[in-house]
Amino acid sequence: MRRLACLLATLTVTLPVAGGLPAQSADPLPSWNEGTTRQQIISFVEAVTDPDSPDFVPEDERIAVFDNDGTLWAEQPIYFQLAFAIDRVKTVAEEKPELKEQEPYRSILKGDLKPLMAGGEHAILEVVMATHADMTTDEFAAIVADWLKTARHPTTGRPYTEMVYQPMLELLAYMRANGFKTFIVSGGGVEFMRVFSEQVYGIPPEQVIGSTIVTKFEMRPTGPVLIRLPKIDFIDDKDGKPVGINRNIGRRPIAAFGNSDGDLQMLEWTTAGTGRRLGAIVHHTDARREWAYDRNSHIGRLDKALDEGRKDGWTIIDMKDDWKVIFPPVRP
Amino acid sequence: MRRLACLLATLTVTLPVAGGLPAQSADPLPSWNEGTTRQQIISFVEAVTDPDSPDFVPEDERIAVFDNDGTLWAEQPIYFQLAFAIDRVKTVAEEKPELKEQEPYRSILKGDLKPLMAGGEHAILEVVMATHADMTTDEFAAIVADWLKTARHPTTGRPYTEMVYQPMLELLAYMRANGFKTFIVSGGGVEFMRVFSEQVYGIPPEQVIGSTIVTKFEMRPTGPVLIRLPKIDFIDDKDGKPVGINRNIGRRPIAAFGNSDGDLQMLEWTTAGTGRRLGAIVHHTDARREWAYDRNSHIGRLDKALDEGRKDGWTIIDMKDDWKVIFPPVRP
Repeated sequence: MRRLACLLATLTVTLPVAGGLPAQSADPLPSWNEGTTRQQIISFVEAVTDPDSPDFVPEDERIAVFDNDGTLWAEQPIYFQLAFAIDRVKTVAEEKPELKEQEPYRSILKGDLKPLMAGGEHAILEVVMATHADMTTDEFAAIVADWLKTARHPTTGRPYTEMVYQPMLELLAYMRANGFKTFIVSGGGVEFMRVFSEQVYGIPPEQVIGSTIVTKFEMRPTGPVLIRLPKIDFIDDKDGKPVGINRNIGRRPIAAFGNSDGDLQMLEWTTAGTGRRLGAIVHHTDARREWAYDRNSHIGRLDKALDEGRKDGWTIIDMKDDWKVIFPPVRP
Repeated sequence: MRRLACLLATLTVTLPVAGGLPAQSADPLPSWNEGTTRQQIISFVEAVTDPDSPDFVPEDERIAVFDNDGTLWAEQPIYFQLAFAIDRVKTVAEEKPELKEQEPYRSILKGDLKPLMAGGEHAILEVVMATHADMTTDEFAAIVADWLKTARHPTTGRPYTEMVYQPMLELLAYMRANGFKTFIVSGGGVEFMRVFSEQVYGIPPEQVIGSTIVTKFEMRPTGPVLIRLPKIDFIDDKDGKPVGINRNIGRRPIAAFGNSDGDLQMLEWTTAGTGRRLGAIVHHTDARREWAYDRNSHIGRLDKALDEGRKDGWTIIDMKDDWKVIFPPVRP
């Protein structure tokens, strides 16, 4: 374990990250175009941080929650954690050769994802379990760190940790500079995200909430370990998001950022609190620089939340119009 | 809900708290006697915070976890949360009169706890469910806050929030002043502890880990609520403590404080990490000023953890010898 922990430490330090957090400057949101969206965000932050404002919120109550896939980083053409699972199938099939003859593994190994996608949520869950469980938490973290170092996004060729939204990195830093505690609240696996959240987003592991699988304490001759079992513990999506927030944070956020119907209940829960609140939706409108999708997308479907957001006055972030750049600059 | 939230805010502000955190002074641990125990703690903190020490730990990795019952506040003659449940039986029996004829409720209402205690864990769990569930999270928090304001400890007559250990309040403040993030990791209910943790211990809700019951998001005509269901979600005790730590914190603590065999796995998990670690046990040795109990106690049984702690060089805090005072001074 000592060796693995050291390995992990090494890997983590060398994760590919572009740009990083923006340098201190007069404008805290340099990648955001002037306009209503930017103004709504700044006006909210100023109102809750000004001690003379009727909307003032004490610092320890300034909780802001962010969805991850499609809100902080991209989620096309498939969720990045699913890309990890698919890459892992090769390794797992070497350990369990019988999988090579079973669907959807057989097709995945030939590069064909159709049987996997046709199997829907059930098939995806099965592949996730086969690739994410039956190992210790330390082993899993090392595997994820290793994958992030080498894997590349299929259309941009960039490391996944560079497929993050530069304007959102600036927003996270801006809110923290104003006394906010920033949390990720994602349907993604919590132990997958924690490997890169601190380095990429400046969000420490204890502020990452996500889906979990059942984990078991075991005393081995070499010392105690936590084993990841192939069994779902908690799905942090839709109705689950307010539940996860309540379980891990224990107070209601005053700001929430999402991009899909999976974030609807989190946005409702946040904005229904007393006092001034900010609900915001990242709307994928930029087919040229990113992807354009909403009501008819299988990934990140945004339908009900868009209607409710427009009706209730949530801030709708239009990626095409509101953002000067999408991704951090490519490193030389 | 708005009314309840306001009510809760009012109640929380007026919780009885004695002493508070110690004033800034040359000695950060004024209630600790000079000696080995005090020295072991200070030497650990100095080693991990000194950038020139081989044991140096970066600030964001300085995670310290504390059990609550018997470690931060007393747990005799019964766990304080059980005292809350018993007091709640009166109210619940008014709402559900059929309980008045059923054991253990019938006896509890007459002040007799024997049938409850004879029923063991199962009976206690049933009473906890009957008194802690079927309401919203906001309603539950308001009930707990109200109880803490009025309830008094049966032998000292003090509010429960004054039955906290003054030396541990100093220790929490000392560790935080040295860049530690302090967490509670307790078998107690997380939503019970969060009502007072920030005001009494300076530990915010998001740093409290405890047992949970299943909670459900529900959209009501008045807005969204979280309903507490009478079903166990997670028991944060024994094997569960490292699991809870992994789920909510996502990295291994470097210091752990407990007082019973329920803390054994948390202490093992913490001290098995690489680098310098501190495992510590609060040993209840003071029959005059507090209570003296260990191996043969039903509450806070300390047997295996005491043996393992002595063998592995954990710091054993002897309440009688190491602490100048136990509780904060009584307010005039």
